[in-house]
Amino acid sequence: MPASPIRKLVPFAEEAKRKGKKVIHLNIGQPDIKTPKVALDAVKNNDLEVLEYSRTEGSDTYRKKLSGYYAKNDIHIDAADIIVTTGGSEALSFAMGSIADHGDEIIIPEPFYANYNGFATAVGVNVVPVTSHIDNNFALPPIEEFEKLITPKTKAILICNPGNPTGYLYTEEEIKKLAAMAKKHDLFLVADEVYREFTYDGCEHHSILREEGLEAHAIMIDSVSKRYSMCGARIGCLVTRNKEVIQTALKFAQARLSPPTYAQIASEAALDTPQQYFDEVKKEYVGRRDLLIAELEKIDGVKIGRPQGAFYCIVELPIEDADHFAQWLLKEYSLDGETVMVAPAGGFYASPGLGKNQIRIAYVLEKESLKRAVKILKEALKSYKG
Amino acid sequence: MPASPIRKLVPFAEEAKRKGKKVIHLNIGQPDIKTPKVALDAVKNNDLEVLEYSRTEGSDTYRKKLSGYYAKNDIHIDAADIIVTTGGSEALSFAMGSIADHGDEIIIPEPFYANYNGFATAVGVNVVPVTSHIDNNFALPPIEEFEKLITPKTKAILICNPGNPTGYLYTEEEIKKLAAMAKKHDLFLVADEVYREFTYDGCEHHSILREEGLEAHAIMIDSVSKRYSMCGARIGCLVTRNKEVIQTALKFAQARLSPPTYAQIASEAALDTPQQYFDEVKKEYVGRRDLLIAELEKIDGVKIGRPQGAFYCIVELPIEDADHFAQWLLKEYSLDGETVMVAPAGGFYASPGLGKNQIRIAYVLEKESLKRAVKILKEALKSYKG
Repeated sequence: MPASPIRKLVPFAEEAKRKGKKVIHLNIGQPDIKTPKVALDAVKNNDLEVLEYSRTEGSDTYRKKLSGYYAKNDIHIDAADIIVTTGGSEALSFAMGSIADHGDEIIIPEPFYANYNGFATAVGVNVVPVTSHIDNNFALPPIEEFEKLITPKTKAILICNPGNPTGYLYTEEEIKKLAAMAKKHDLFLVADEVYREFTYDGCEHHSILREEGLEAHAIMIDSVSKRYSMCGARIGCLVTRNKEVIQTALKFAQARLSPPTYAQIASEAALDTPQQYFDEVKKEYVGRRDLLIAELEKIDGVKIGRPQGAFYCIVELPIEDADHFAQWLLKEYSLDGETVMVAPAGGFYASPGLGKNQIRIAYVLEKESLKRAVKILKEALKSYKG
Repeated sequence: MPASPIRKLVPFAEEAKRKGKKVIHLNIGQPDIKTPKVALDAVKNNDLEVLEYSRTEGSDTYRKKLSGYYAKNDIHIDAADIIVTTGGSEALSFAMGSIADHGDEIIIPEPFYANYNGFATAVGVNVVPVTSHIDNNFALPPIEEFEKLITPKTKAILICNPGNPTGYLYTEEEIKKLAAMAKKHDLFLVADEVYREFTYDGCEHHSILREEGLEAHAIMIDSVSKRYSMCGARIGCLVTRNKEVIQTALKFAQARLSPPTYAQIASEAALDTPQQYFDEVKKEYVGRRDLLIAELEKIDGVKIGRPQGAFYCIVELPIEDADHFAQWLLKEYSLDGETVMVAPAGGFYASPGLGKNQIRIAYVLEKESLKRAVKILKEALKSYKG
């Protein structure tokens, strides 16, 4: 199992804090936004006397209500097309286990969410990266680049849309290109759409489940974690109209019995979150992104992959080794007793050597902290000798 | 992925209920016992505003308190030896993934909990069964039987103690024999001890973690599901003093981020459950077991594996095919509008053909229902033509 790129830094951050240094975390995707009250209250007011297993595929009422939520997003699926999972993580594990055997391959545009490696390793699937680039904000690589990599062992293309760590939002045209390729080569198209709600600048999210004729190929991964700022619930889902995939995924689900009951209560109630909540959250993230980018642009030699979704961006720094820089920030540097923790981007690439001078920043902090963090970064770069 | 032996019957049970037949479930291990109030109240009174990720390995306070619980059970481990998981299921998955590679083998006494097959299949590990027998209540097979099966690919022995589906409680002597074998052949000894609390007739549970010199070999799987009748929480743990295993399991844990937060709140509070709760629950189960066995013994040609732990027992019936019988009970039979659903035991064996005339009964129902269920079974056997 590969270690997460951020995990390696944790001991240095802990050591820094022990020494009294303040650490601003630009490295984690745990939003500071409050969870909708309607979700928290549903759990506080529950009247269970026996905390029983739920149905393996998730409670009927939750799945039915979820399909209503998707309909509002122009995604028309039945409750039977949904398996509720323990986080998007489990949905990804089930998807990989259901569509690929040991030694099979899944093509993923890099940089990608590093935990995809973990899920792939656990089921013995090989990740084949196709590189996207900061110069066009990590847009979809040309289809020919994918096709070069397809072998008889290729089972699927996996995308994250909007992307973690890139913040890139695929256009409808890009999704259509991917769909056509999936059909042409008879591959699954798996889309991690957990950041669906977070799209900016008037751009609209285009789900793979809206593509006609892709019923047998499309598998969508979702989660309540980011949408409702309830990462600790651990509720996600796998959605596909492919009945064979549902049947196989259900066997994985049966082995682990059921998703957590309290968290399903919270997730079902969260579906009643008023639109105003999302409008405010979105406005907040846009403000943070704009501030972050404006501040970063003031630093010489910095290149930014401008995000139109999610709450991450990849930043190229005028350094050679972001791993070393990130450690140095924690171990050696401080500005008025403060430093920042960043995620070196190398761990988000599968191709060795790529992303060495890049970091990922999660803008899930209040604007004042973000501003302060970029200032620290700017000053640190002046002192850093590499 | 293999299907669970009970799952195949579910559509027949649903059809029976649609037709107005009452179905008494002897097939499921969902206790009807109330969850301790202290656990339910902790969740109702929580004051979280952001439902955040917990630590990957489980919250520090919970793991610390858990190690205190184990100390009371004469199991002396540090909080650092514990990884909190999403149910015992995830702990089993992590254990198998951490100690075996694709194509490796794990020896398991059969009959065994059918979902072990699912976890093994998911990580590409082969289950090698060693048969235990109803005639001695499914006691540990002779060590020579295990040793015959050990190959260079064998990585571990996995036991469930007390056993699901057998209810057999291994003696201290049997645990010592297993420990000696694990050391001799340098194998892991994995023990699923989720029914630890449920031991009867004055018998004491002997954990593998109490064996000296087994530090590098012993991996214990635990869960709050049965202990506190909170199966829907989905909280378990993996416990081992082997630091290498902890490190590897932690990587699996990191990929799925964290165990559910609400459920950890409930589980931590559940550790304050008064002893009286367990005394009453145990008394209730002993009463049910005694009644169940007394009633079953009145049926001609029935053989019972007498359980001293958990809340299951395997029953051999004077029939040839328990799969067919279980279906027939749901599809064709009723006594005053009622029938029973049983788990055919064939699915708990890995050796083809074994257990064909056996069923597993879970005694998690009130005595009156149990008595009624056995009466239906008795009358049904008279009508059944096979």
